[in-house]
Amino acid sequence: MSRFLSRRAAALTPYVAGEQTQDPRTVKLNTNECPYPPSPRVLEAIRDVSGDRLRRYPEPSSLELRKELASYAGLAPDQVFPGNGSDEILAFCFRAFFDSRCDLPVPEDDPRAAVLFPDITYSFYPVYAGFYDIPFRTVPLDGDFRIPAEALCGPSAGVVLANPNAPTGIALPLADVERIVAARPDRLVVVDEAYVDFGGESALALLPRYDNLLVVQTFSKSRSLAGLRVGMAFGTRPLVEALERVRDAFNSYTMDCVAQAGARAALSDGAWFERNRARIAATRDTTRRRLEAMGFRVLPSAANFLLARPPRGDARRMYEGLKSEGILVRHFNRPRISEYLRISIGTDDDMDRLADSLARWLREGAAEGAP
Amino acid sequence: MSRFLSRRAAALTPYVAGEQTQDPRTVKLNTNECPYPPSPRVLEAIRDVSGDRLRRYPEPSSLELRKELASYAGLAPDQVFPGNGSDEILAFCFRAFFDSRCDLPVPEDDPRAAVLFPDITYSFYPVYAGFYDIPFRTVPLDGDFRIPAEALCGPSAGVVLANPNAPTGIALPLADVERIVAARPDRLVVVDEAYVDFGGESALALLPRYDNLLVVQTFSKSRSLAGLRVGMAFGTRPLVEALERVRDAFNSYTMDCVAQAGARAALSDGAWFERNRARIAATRDTTRRRLEAMGFRVLPSAANFLLARPPRGDARRMYEGLKSEGILVRHFNRPRISEYLRISIGTDDDMDRLADSLARWLREGAAEGAP
Repeated sequence: MSRFLSRRAAALTPYVAGEQTQDPRTVKLNTNECPYPPSPRVLEAIRDVSGDRLRRYPEPSSLELRKELASYAGLAPDQVFPGNGSDEILAFCFRAFFDSRCDLPVPEDDPRAAVLFPDITYSFYPVYAGFYDIPFRTVPLDGDFRIPAEALCGPSAGVVLANPNAPTGIALPLADVERIVAARPDRLVVVDEAYVDFGGESALALLPRYDNLLVVQTFSKSRSLAGLRVGMAFGTRPLVEALERVRDAFNSYTMDCVAQAGARAALSDGAWFERNRARIAATRDTTRRRLEAMGFRVLPSAANFLLARPPRGDARRMYEGLKSEGILVRHFNRPRISEYLRISIGTDDDMDRLADSLARWLREGAAEGAP
Repeated sequence: MSRFLSRRAAALTPYVAGEQTQDPRTVKLNTNECPYPPSPRVLEAIRDVSGDRLRRYPEPSSLELRKELASYAGLAPDQVFPGNGSDEILAFCFRAFFDSRCDLPVPEDDPRAAVLFPDITYSFYPVYAGFYDIPFRTVPLDGDFRIPAEALCGPSAGVVLANPNAPTGIALPLADVERIVAARPDRLVVVDEAYVDFGGESALALLPRYDNLLVVQTFSKSRSLAGLRVGMAFGTRPLVEALERVRDAFNSYTMDCVAQAGARAALSDGAWFERNRARIAATRDTTRRRLEAMGFRVLPSAANFLLARPPRGDARRMYEGLKSEGILVRHFNRPRISEYLRISIGTDDDMDRLADSLARWLREGAAEGAP
C-alpha cells in the first residue's frame, strides 16, 4: 500500500465486481448483463455522434435524456437525475443524504445515526458508507431470505433497499415498500431498482405521494447497456437538486455525449425492451424449474438471475468446475449464501450449456459416491 | 434545499463550469475546448463498437488504453490510471491521498494538516477539499501571477499544482516543479497538466526519480475529446493502486467501452495531435499580439487560452457585450482576476470574429468618452 494513502482510503474494503472477460467463447452468467444486444437504434445513435459534438463538453444536465426519462416515468424533467451508471448515483446518494461520523447531529449510538440496509443485499452499500465514514446497521433477512419490512420502519438515518433484492432476486411487494416509506417521513428511503424490469413492482408509483423516496434505476440490465454506463434517479425536485449539488462538487460532466445519445435511443425502443425482458423472465422461470428438477434449492426470483443451492451444497467447487468449462457464475464467500451460486439468465442456449454441465457434474459426483 | 441534505453536502459550494450551449452559431471561447474535431480514427473506432460490446460491462481496468498510454509516457501499464475525465481523477486523488478533518494524524493547526495550492488556480480544488472536509491552505501568486515555488516547499499534507496554471495560462518551469517535489519526499505533489500539450514542460520526465509525484492529464483539450470524458494519471504503482482502491469503493466501471475505444484511437493519431496543438499555439500567440495591440494586458500563456485585461478594466461588461453578440468567453468574479477575461483559443476565424467585436467595443467606448 502506498505510504501516501489517506487514513480513510486505507480503511476501505473496495467492492469486488464479477470478473469481466473479453473471451467470446465464455458463457458469461456472472454479472447479470443482458444476453441480448441493445436496440439497433442505439448503434445508429452512436454512429451519428459527430466530431464537433465530441470536441465539446457534453450537455451537463443531459436535458434531452432527462425529458425522455421523465416522460417514461410520468414525472417532470427536473425530477430526474441521470449519471454514469447507477453505482455512481448511489455513491452520490450516500454523500448527499447521509452524515459522516464526525458530522452526526445525534450521538453515534442513537438509532438515528445509522443508515439501515439488509444484511444480505448489494454488497456495495457498506462500501459507500465506508467511503464517507457513514455509520450503518444491517437488518437480517428472514429464514426465507425475505426482507423484514417491519425492521426497516424503526428510527434510522435513512434506508437503502434493493428491490428486487440482490443476490437473492426476491422482490418485496410494493405495499411493504410503502410501509417502510410511510413509517417515518423524516428519513429518506432509497430504493435501488436495478432489476425491477424483470418482475418487480416499481416504487415510481409512490413518488407522487412521498417526498422521502428516491428511486434508482439503470440501463445496464434490461436495456442492454452495461458497457455504456447509464443510470438514473427519480424523486422530488429538492432530492434531485441535492444530487446535482454533490455531482457538481465531484465531476461536473459525468455522462459523456455518446452515453446520452445511446440511452435516449434505447429508451425510444419500447418494443425491443419489452421483448427482451419477457424473454429473460421466461428463460429464468424455465431455468428455475430445471434446476429444481436437479435437486437445487432456488429462491423465487423476480430479477434476471437466480440464487441457487446445489443439492450437495458444494457451491464453491461447482463454481470452479463450471469456470474450468468456460461457464462463469458468481459465488459469494459470505455467511448464509456461501452454499449458493448466483446465476445470471443468459440466452436459452447459454442455459442449455449450463444445464448440461450441471447434470454431468451431478452424475459424476454421484458416481464418485459423494453424499 | 432538501431537508434530507447531509450536513457536508449542505456546506458544499459546488464548482461552476462555463456555460455549455448547443447553438452552432455561438463562438464558444469559454471552456477551453479544442476548436478542431478529433482524429477521424476516433469516429471510426466509435462506429466499430458492437451491440455485444455495449451489453457487457466495460473492461474495468481499461487495460488496452493503459498499455498505450504507458507506451506514450514511457512507463509500465500499471503506472497508469484512466478515468471519466481528469476531474473525476482529481476527485479520487483527494480521497486517496489527503485526510479529512476528523482523520487528521496531526493537530488541525499543524502545517502538515492542510493541502496546499495557489490562491488563483483551478477553482475545483477547494471544492474537492470541501467534498471530503479536507483542510487546505492557499499560497498567493506573486504580482506577475506566477506560482511562488518556494512557498509550496514548506510542510503540508500535500500539494496540488496546475501546470500550466489556470486561469492564468502561465507555465511553471520544470526545474521549479522538481524543486517542489524534491523539497519534501514525505508528501505527495499532484501536478494537473490539463494544458501541458500547448507549451508546458511535463513532469512525466520526473517520474522515474520521484515516488511522491502524480501527473494528471486529459483528452479534453489537446485531443479534442471533452465530450467523451477521458483523463489519466501517471505515477508509481502504489499511487495507481491507491486510486484503483478508491475508484472501486465508488464506481467500479467509470470508463464506458466507447470512451475507451475513442481514447485509444485518438492516442494512435500522433500526427493529428501534433498538428492541432501547433495550430492552437500559433493562433494563441497571434491573438495575444492582437490583444496587446488593442491595449489589453495579456498574461504569457502556455495553454490554449489567454487571461487578458481590457484596456479600461471593464471585463464584466465586455463579457456581457460579447455574449450578446454570440461570443462566449469566461469572466471570474474573484479577487485579483475580476478585471480579466479568460479567452479560449478557437480557430483563426473564431479569433477574427472576437477581434472585430473587441475593436468595435473599444471604438464605441472611446466615442462615448469612456475613460
